[in-house]
Amino acid sequence: MKAINTETQQAAQERQSQLTKPMGSLGRLEDLAIWFSGRTGNDTPKRLQAAICVFAADHGVAAEGVSAFPAEVTAQMVVNFINGGAAISVLARENNMSLSIVDVGVKSDYPTPNTSHGKLFRSPVCAGTANLRITAAMTEAQMNKAWQIGAGSAMHAVENNKNLIIGGEMGIANTTAAAALICALTGASPEDIVGLGTGIQAGAHAHKIQVVKDALIRAKSAGAVTAFDWLREVGGLEIAALAGFYTAAAEAGVPVLLDGFITTAAALVAVKANPAVGEWLLASHVSQEQGHRSALAALNLTPILDLGLRLGEASGAAIAFPIIQSALTLHREMATFAEAGVAAGAM
Amino acid sequence: MKAINTETQQAAQERQSQLTKPMGSLGRLEDLAIWFSGRTGNDTPKRLQAAICVFAADHGVAAEGVSAFPAEVTAQMVVNFINGGAAISVLARENNMSLSIVDVGVKSDYPTPNTSHGKLFRSPVCAGTANLRITAAMTEAQMNKAWQIGAGSAMHAVENNKNLIIGGEMGIANTTAAAALICALTGASPEDIVGLGTGIQAGAHAHKIQVVKDALIRAKSAGAVTAFDWLREVGGLEIAALAGFYTAAAEAGVPVLLDGFITTAAALVAVKANPAVGEWLLASHVSQEQGHRSALAALNLTPILDLGLRLGEASGAAIAFPIIQSALTLHREMATFAEAGVAAGAM
Repeated sequence: MKAINTETQQAAQERQSQLTKPMGSLGRLEDLAIWFSGRTGNDTPKRLQAAICVFAADHGVAAEGVSAFPAEVTAQMVVNFINGGAAISVLARENNMSLSIVDVGVKSDYPTPNTSHGKLFRSPVCAGTANLRITAAMTEAQMNKAWQIGAGSAMHAVENNKNLIIGGEMGIANTTAAAALICALTGASPEDIVGLGTGIQAGAHAHKIQVVKDALIRAKSAGAVTAFDWLREVGGLEIAALAGFYTAAAEAGVPVLLDGFITTAAALVAVKANPAVGEWLLASHVSQEQGHRSALAALNLTPILDLGLRLGEASGAAIAFPIIQSALTLHREMATFAEAGVAAGAM
Repeated sequence: MKAINTETQQAAQERQSQLTKPMGSLGRLEDLAIWFSGRTGNDTPKRLQAAICVFAADHGVAAEGVSAFPAEVTAQMVVNFINGGAAISVLARENNMSLSIVDVGVKSDYPTPNTSHGKLFRSPVCAGTANLRITAAMTEAQMNKAWQIGAGSAMHAVENNKNLIIGGEMGIANTTAAAALICALTGASPEDIVGLGTGIQAGAHAHKIQVVKDALIRAKSAGAVTAFDWLREVGGLEIAALAGFYTAAAEAGVPVLLDGFITTAAALVAVKANPAVGEWLLASHVSQEQGHRSALAALNLTPILDLGLRLGEASGAAIAFPIIQSALTLHREMATFAEAGVAAGAM
């Protein structure tokens, strides 16, 4: 794993104290500029070129009635992403971010989209996962293949000179898998972590908690111990891809901006498997989905935004992105007290 | 005052329920789109063209040692704004917002800036306010003139087809004036409202609280009752200009995005003088400055961001701006379930 450059990080901190503003008055934006200086090895980090990869896959556990939407919506949304009508399509255009959609296991057939607001990579590992309540979600081979597809997507972005890596996901029922993973990897109880997902009612919520409890008991008795074990047992193909995506980005020394509940579950897997990955992660927002706050806390991450979002697709990361870009532009372009002939004050 | 169009507001709410996402999953961004629909009389509000006006003026109370910076910094920062080196100069460029600086009472001489990253309007009412601890900050005539300059700036922006109005300020010692106004208009105590401003130490902070207490007692015994009385007694020229700026924007039916502590104090004056102004205000962020949260609560405003900012200059509003733009673009450009052929779910 690439090391953080403490020299450029310190130089950035020093520069922040010279810019024409009271020290600390740009709050989190100062921290972000310093953070990127350490990761990029540049005390005035360049403009961000962000790559968004949305990984899509289906979940066998959808058969348990844990989502308000039918499983076919995963495929329908893949088409919507590429046709430019989904939230992430709009946000990628609005904020000048590249968008790729990677099908790592969508079950339903879907037509090849006929307009292009993003690149579609069709590389399904299998037709969705098995029902994690009753059996392992994936085989070892399926998990590894999904992981490698994610890692390859990150490498592809890095080769295309992207210097910020953003993962998103689409997969009906994937908050169930993510909640199970977060419980397994943090020790939290399903009651505290399982949320309403797309917007289920109280009865379905109680059932969803039971499904997660059953899955955790089953996987434990099947011998799950490591992060990889839990990922295979109760995860999902898009979650495995995201974990591989984040790990490869960190190995390449490229910062990662997390999205919401599911991407944070994937990041937890990546960090449990390789703690150094954690140094390359930023949290864009805290989701309305119950349990996201605990998952971020387990990663020692402080979200930039708290706007009641719970959509996924990388939408929260795309909404936060301009703030990070502003932080770096301020850091590069503001005048120092000396340059501007402004008195520095007595602080 | 222009009325809110409840018909377009309702149509926007209906549209939000048809877009390809779980209802409510874009959180605050959905509320923002609906809010703008009511204010613009358009159920799919157009792209925002934002005008930033930063009002600069000096404060006699700076002589009390209530700021960490010398009073000359007000003039020095005006030059920095126009030369492009200040935070707001950088943010206006970054986020495509027009920037005007209006000198409504800068005391120190300053050279005419020689490059142009914003328009400078020199219309000083007088060489700063009097020391509000010992006498009224302004005369009635000075206050009215500053108010009218602010109102004229808003009208100028509206004539130039700007559809979002953002005020900022520069004035060494102006957190003292703003704190006094917030105490006077909300009944809060100086201990709860007076903060560290540019970053004063504990001793100066205790002194600043005493200065505000003295000013409030003095102004009360001088007969201050109305919002205008308090503005004249303990306010500032840039605060009067901002209050006029917001009032004129609301009268023209153009939404206002507030910045931090000082602009919120000006908004309180405007709303106390004319409650209907409040319907046109949005809060960009909650500042690190103690008392900002109470001031926002008094206006029933919920901030979009909480990033520990405390710079002023309209910087917090400029940082939040892309989020609002994203909210409106999502609302205009996302596909509906019917358009995208996506199943709408059981919610």
